Amino acid sequence: MKFLILNGPNLNLLGTREKSIYGEHTLDTINACIDIFAQQAGHEVSFAQSNVEGELVDLIQEASGSYDGIVINPAAYTHTSVAIRDAILAIDLPVVEVHLSVPSGREDFRQVNMLADVVVGRVEGFGGDGYTLALQGLIRHLEESKA
Amino acid sequence: MKFLILNGPNLNLLGTREKSIYGEHTLDTINACIDIFAQQAGHEVSFAQSNVEGELVDLIQEASGSYDGIVINPAAYTHTSVAIRDAILAIDLPVVEVHLSVPSGREDFRQVNMLADVVVGRVEGFGGDGYTLALQGLIRHLEESKA
Amino acid sequence: MKFLILNGPNLNLLGTREKSIYGEHTLDTINACIDIFAQQAGHEVSFAQSNVEGELVDLIQEASGSYDGIVINPAAYTHTSVAIRDAILAIDLPVVEVHLSVPSGREDFRQVNMLADVVVGRVEGFGGDGYTLALQGLIRHLEESKA
Amino acid sequence: MKFLILNGPNLNLLGTREKSIYGEHTLDTINACIDIFAQQAGHEVSFAQSNVEGELVDLIQEASGSYDGIVINPAAYTHTSVAIRDAILAIDLPVVEVHLSVPSGREDFRQVNMLADVVVGRVEGFGGDGYTLALQGLIRHLEESKA
Amino acid sequence: MKFLILNGPNLNLLGTREKSIYGEHTLDTINACIDIFAQQAGHEVSFAQSNVEGELVDLIQEASGSYDGIVINPAAYTHTSVAIRDAILAIDLPVVEVHLSVPSGREDFRQVNMLADVVVGRVEGFGGDGYTLALQGLIRHLEESKA
Amino acid sequence: MKFLILNGPNLNLLGTREKSIYGEHTLDTINACIDIFAQQAGHEVSFAQSNVEGELVDLIQEASGSYDGIVINPAAYTHTSVAIRDAILAIDLPVVEVHLSVPSGREDFRQVNMLADVVVGRVEGFGGDGYTLALQGLIRHLEESKA
Amino acid sequence: MKFLILNGPNLNLLGTREKSIYGEHTLDTINACIDIFAQQAGHEVSFAQSNVEGELVDLIQEASGSYDGIVINPAAYTHTSVAIRDAILAIDLPVVEVHLSVPSGREDFRQVNMLADVVVGRVEGFGGDGYTLALQGLIRHLEESKA
Amino acid sequence: MKFLILNGPNLNLLGTREKSIYGEHTLDTINACIDIFAQQAGHEVSFAQSNVEGELVDLIQEASGSYDGIVINPAAYTHTSVAIRDAILAIDLPVVEVHLSVPSGREDFRQVNMLADVVVGRVEGFGGDGYTLALQGLIRHLEESKA
Amino acid sequence: MKFLILNGPNLNLLGTREKSIYGEHTLDTINACIDIFAQQAGHEVSFAQSNVEGELVDLIQEASGSYDGIVINPAAYTHTSVAIRDAILAIDLPVVEVHLSVPSGREDFRQVNMLADVVVGRVEGFGGDGYTLALQGLIRHLEESKA
Amino acid sequence: MKFLILNGPNLNLLGTREKSIYGEHTLDTINACIDIFAQQAGHEVSFAQSNVEGELVDLIQEASGSYDGIVINPAAYTHTSVAIRDAILAIDLPVVEVHLSVPSGREDFRQVNMLADVVVGRVEGFGGDGYTLALQGLIRHLEESKA
Amino acid sequence: MKFLILNGPNLNLLGTREKSIYGEHTLDTINACIDIFAQQAGHEVSFAQSNVEGELVDLIQEASGSYDGIVINPAAYTHTSVAIRDAILAIDLPVVEVHLSVPSGREDFRQVNMLADVVVGRVEGFGGDGYTLALQGLIRHLEESKA
Amino acid sequence: MKFLILNGPNLNLLGTREKSIYGEHTLDTINACIDIFAQQAGHEVSFAQSNVEGELVDLIQEASGSYDGIVINPAAYTHTSVAIRDAILAIDLPVVEVHLSVPSGREDFRQVNMLADVVVGRVEGFGGDGYTLALQGLIRHLEESKA
Repeated sequence: MKFLILNGPNLNLLGTREKSIYGEHTLDTINACIDIFAQQAGHEVSFAQSNVEGELVDLIQEASGSYDGIVINPAAYTHTSVAIRDAILAIDLPVVEVHLSVPSGREDFRQVNMLADVVVGRVEGFGGDGYTLALQGLIRHLEESKA
Repeated sequence: MKFLILNGPNLNLLGTREKSIYGEHTLDTINACIDIFAQQAGHEVSFAQSNVEGELVDLIQEASGSYDGIVINPAAYTHTSVAIRDAILAIDLPVVEVHLSVPSGREDFRQVNMLADVVVGRVEGFGGDGYTLALQGLIRHLEESKA
Repeated sequence: MKFLILNGPNLNLLGTREKSIYGEHTLDTINACIDIFAQQAGHEVSFAQSNVEGELVDLIQEASGSYDGIVINPAAYTHTSVAIRDAILAIDLPVVEVHLSVPSGREDFRQVNMLADVVVGRVEGFGGDGYTLALQGLIRHLEESKA
Repeated sequence: MKFLILNGPNLNLLGTREKSIYGEHTLDTINACIDIFAQQAGHEVSFAQSNVEGELVDLIQEASGSYDGIVINPAAYTHTSVAIRDAILAIDLPVVEVHLSVPSGREDFRQVNMLADVVVGRVEGFGGDGYTLALQGLIRHLEESKA
Repeated sequence: MKFLILNGPNLNLLGTREKSIYGEHTLDTINACIDIFAQQAGHEVSFAQSNVEGELVDLIQEASGSYDGIVINPAAYTHTSVAIRDAILAIDLPVVEVHLSVPSGREDFRQVNMLADVVVGRVEGFGGDGYTLALQGLIRHLEESKA
Repeated sequence: MKFLILNGPNLNLLGTREKSIYGEHTLDTINACIDIFAQQAGHEVSFAQSNVEGELVDLIQEASGSYDGIVINPAAYTHTSVAIRDAILAIDLPVVEVHLSVPSGREDFRQVNMLADVVVGRVEGFGGDGYTLALQGLIRHLEESKA
Repeated sequence: MKFLILNGPNLNLLGTREKSIYGEHTLDTINACIDIFAQQAGHEVSFAQSNVEGELVDLIQEASGSYDGIVINPAAYTHTSVAIRDAILAIDLPVVEVHLSVPSGREDFRQVNMLADVVVGRVEGFGGDGYTLALQGLIRHLEESKA
Repeated sequence: MKFLILNGPNLNLLGTREKSIYGEHTLDTINACIDIFAQQAGHEVSFAQSNVEGELVDLIQEASGSYDGIVINPAAYTHTSVAIRDAILAIDLPVVEVHLSVPSGREDFRQVNMLADVVVGRVEGFGGDGYTLALQGLIRHLEESKA
Repeated sequence: MKFLILNGPNLNLLGTREKSIYGEHTLDTINACIDIFAQQAGHEVSFAQSNVEGELVDLIQEASGSYDGIVINPAAYTHTSVAIRDAILAIDLPVVEVHLSVPSGREDFRQVNMLADVVVGRVEGFGGDGYTLALQGLIRHLEESKA
Repeated sequence: MKFLILNGPNLNLLGTREKSIYGEHTLDTINACIDIFAQQAGHEVSFAQSNVEGELVDLIQEASGSYDGIVINPAAYTHTSVAIRDAILAIDLPVVEVHLSVPSGREDFRQVNMLADVVVGRVEGFGGDGYTLALQGLIRHLEESKA
Repeated sequence: MKFLILNGPNLNLLGTREKSIYGEHTLDTINACIDIFAQQAGHEVSFAQSNVEGELVDLIQEASGSYDGIVINPAAYTHTSVAIRDAILAIDLPVVEVHLSVPSGREDFRQVNMLADVVVGRVEGFGGDGYTLALQGLIRHLEESKA
Repeated sequence: MKFLILNGPNLNLLGTREKSIYGEHTLDTINACIDIFAQQAGHEVSFAQSNVEGELVDLIQEASGSYDGIVINPAAYTHTSVAIRDAILAIDLPVVEVHLSVPSGREDFRQVNMLADVVVGRVEGFGGDGYTLALQGLIRHLEESKA
């Protein structure tokens, strides 16, 4: 199976700043780990990142047909984007949400999650490890759906 | 007169997915119908679509001077975009809003409409037919303003 | 097909007062225009108006069986009437809502719409022209439902 | 003892529509059952129904003096009518409220009940059977008050 | 000058019930006092009361042309009626609001006043005496407007 | 048929305190009345009471298989217990809710009802008599379900 | 009888500024009119004004024993002062509230009235005339209390 | 390392009811899978379940000293329990939260999460598989903390 | 006189954890201090603690008859328990509330206090010393009630 | 040590009015009791009272340097004064809050406490006795801080 | 031109306390800097400070006629004072608001700003430098108004 | 030092439209003034503008390393953008916010400011002059940080 690992705004800065919160790993390092995990599990992964809400919508739309599922960290857009929500609804791929921290344990405006009822599952708080856990969960979800 | 038909995020997927909700017609088919209607009424229409909020702002800004009015389906950005609202306020063209469904009859976050007090009128719930109704209303509005 | 054009409270005063907001046309003039449009389209329309919420409920109930659909401007009751909502739900006719202005662009209490999820569609902001647009939309809706 | 069974808006349509929600019995059938129960229990019942809030106020006002208590299904007005509430407060008859379904388990606007602190009791969710249960409760309430 | 004294729901019961709250005077007695005051001041007054929201709308509409102003006690409809508000806006008579008690000092739902920004003035809490004070205020308002 | 009559926190004190609110009858007396009614109707009833939310969850879970339905007075837990709600959803027995008073007519925190959309019906305000009314309603509900 | 006419913050500027809103009369002129009215009615009035919340509290406290009642225009403190509310509760004089305009028809923060349930009555919207109407209402209130 | 797998109210019914939502696996089956995973990873797990909020508090308190971390599915108590939150804060073990579904995508009352800022991480929506993912995350968290 | 000192969830951990917040004293040490104070004052005290809401309800119910008053630290249940509130209302003993910190100065969910209008008094913020202050206050309250 | 006992608005009226709520003791009597207690404990107390928010700010500012701590009953300003809060933050004295009743058990506007997170502790509901309890708590707090 | 620099509650303590937040400069030092700046720019400034809301109202009223504009730091009263707002509205001087920090980035109660729509401009977050920036902005505003 | 002057959506239209609100100056003119000021002060400034939220995020990210600080007018995105907020947090440059008008004095949705707690300072309401004031404040902030 083939998966898209999609990262939202400011995640391109991972590992270079605010290390105490988001950890020491760059997005490239995290992606490399995901890639190794995927290959070992016999799957293929691609990576994309954008700071632009509408480009994330484009990427989600284009994933349909090319991938079996999406692991997305929508970052800031988690709390405000109806457009990303509508894009997930519009395609027929299972989507799993990852967050490095636990957003609902932070500021008030992070209590709102526009995607909660359109994703298959969510992994929060395990830093970069969360992507691999999310991918595992997505693979299991697809295997069980087929069974 | 010359009009811009402007579509927001995810409307490029019309007719290919979620047909039970949004109908069987693609955006191209809908646009073709609008074009025929406009020609029969002796007017000219152009079409644009973007998934990016800021590009919709660009398109609205650029419409000023080239068009007599705009028919817009802001889709997801209806509920969140102060920027599109400010763009409509900043130009002096009449803008009419179209929605395929009746958004305020759906999820809670669709109860908020950032554009309600800056548009001339609104047509909701008639699927693709709504664009032609909106264009008719806009033409009448302009004819009466001149009278 | 046969349609009921139903008007709510204070719309009997149209064209005689607050002309700057609601336009110069009386309800009779507007109704005459709708009638001409309907005849040209080969349909039949009847007209009713009441200031009493419960009488509007009566009129909606009685429409069932005699008409193919209703175009309603519930005016003030749009924002408060559970009874009109329940009446629309209780009959099996498609109902389209019209407003002369865009209510959600006005006072806070006009943000609440009790009918949004029980009407087929809505036309707002085109003054008296809105009724004809709404009727067109309703006819198209019925034609497509039959198709 | 003598009781008024008072029904609010749209209940005149019972049994003819939306049978899956409100059951197959017409209001006449339900009233006939209540009448039989009342006669067997040695009491007398009258019946009234109106779609007009103010007429329900009239009927409540007029009940004072002629009846020992009222069983009311205020339907849609349950959630909005200060006037019916004030009428119940203004007379000195015990009033019991009936609902065919459990309103607070439905839409948000049905969470508001204007009558909760002015009625003796309430029976919800038993369809047409609720009227007889309510009448039983009202009779017991009156018997115990006298004791 | 000629004035309409208009009373809303349940005020026909004044003086016969809940005397501890609303006083011992019937509506007829109160009206008689207003009449005497008006005659002494050289003005004419008419009286109307209805429990039906839409009939109050009718009465307000019809007052236009026949009266110089309205003194209204909207009672329960104060807190819920957009229709009465719209009717006051639709006519060009000054309207003064009277309440026997101070509603905003009572239940939460009486904190909402739909008429506050469309009336000339308001008198609250003086029981039946409030009507005469309101009429005095209305007369002064009209005299000063003409001056 | 066999029914469980389940009472929540503080109802074990009935009849010994706050008699002006909750009446003079002890829970034993009330249960005895329910028992007599059930026997006369040819049914069997068991009784349980607990002050512990989780024990009420246990009792609801264990009722499945042994009873045809439950009459529950969740008392204080009505307004706060997601766990009892989830337990009712988890079993396939019809549950009817009883309250001695009308909770939504009391303090603000009693306006929240966690069970409204998972119970068959609700009887409020008739003191100890409410249990028998609720049981009657439940029996009718089961008889009609079978019919 | 003897009355205190008490004015809150910024009312010392009356008649010198914002004449379109608050009228052309200075506080001295208004007070002179009240004085004449009081003398003609055989009563005595004193006048005080302060911009300081705590001084208004002092003045209310000191009024007890020296006056039969207070007519107060708390102006800005109407919406925020628990201290003035507590002072009115602490003395046993009847207090009547006056406002030149109708505050609840203005900004959102003027919807809150801290005094509504501790005053005898309220007169709003009649400009300077409101004080005399309020005094009349207060005198009637005292006369009826004694009767 | 040694871990406690702690389950809250109604999870003892897993796999026997509501299979369409919560899956076909019983809690025993799920626990067996976790056990196998733990053994393969060279760790030890214990299991506990309770429907009683206070017993879950007891179990969390007692875990301190005996375990290296807790994987908890607080179920219904997620949304209401300050006591469980305080217990987690009171001990010094890392706690990871699991939910079979995505609670914030369901009813309004499931939007509140009392534990979000006191857990290390959260896994939602992967059914029984979530426990193993959560345990993996917890192990990684502990390994990285030590590093 | 005889008093029950009742402690809620997680207070059994006092002095062993989170010492910076709750102090170095164990619950046993605190209780010993209370005991010495009570003996010196010529009174008798008993102690109880539970993590289970319903057991606290049991303990409050059972205190009636055996004690002259209760000093309770409801801890987490302060903010959520209608059941404890109802238990306090159901017995006729005076209850005084103690908190080690000042809860309303902490998280938002600690702003809600279910007991505020059913306790005699409250002592907050003095750590373990608060119990003795509360007991002093309770004794004075009882002495003054008898006087 | 030396302490300031500071009283806010309307507390100068204590013991002369509303005795059923606030008790029979005047502020002088209460202060005398505090003085005796302080002397016996070997400390010194001063007393101040003002109805003016800004004067209370002045008094708090001036206390810094002259006193070891403040016992304050901010009365009405508890719920509204950011200025008093800022004053307490600006000085480095420990402040303890006293209320004669339990404010959060009264009107809604008394639920807001501007000082909760800037005071050391709070004593509520013990009438005049509360000051001495608060002073005891403050002394203990200072003794433990020094230890 | 001549300007009043007006400071609200607790600003007299600047530079002596909480230096980490508000900086090391006393109000006198800050005022001296403003004075030098004003003199260099050819303008005149006066300074006033009060902890009393009503005295700030007095100072604003008296500024009218003597000054060309006001630079005000309302401190705590920013969030609560309708009286200061009304005073600014009542005079015809331009007013500029200064805050040492950015209040809307702090506690929730600092999100409310009563003055936002009555001031010409606002400078936040630059400590004592903000006054000079504000004065510059005010001077430019006046120069442009005259141009 | 080197600064980035960053402008958000619709500010490219400055000076060509809505001149009564935003002034007669184009963005180019304003930028030219800032440039002159910066040069005179011995600093360097660059300018950027975008209507796209994500491009503003890009520009903020890229500024890190090349500039000493940013002056930003986020316009519409002030009220909605978590992404811009996160970008400011992610870099270690001081950011100052400018607004031409005072947003919190306008529509309700402009009360929300996503940036308030992540900017150094804010200048509002001085039109194009605000940028220079903000830059001055930013320079002072940097000079003092270094001192």
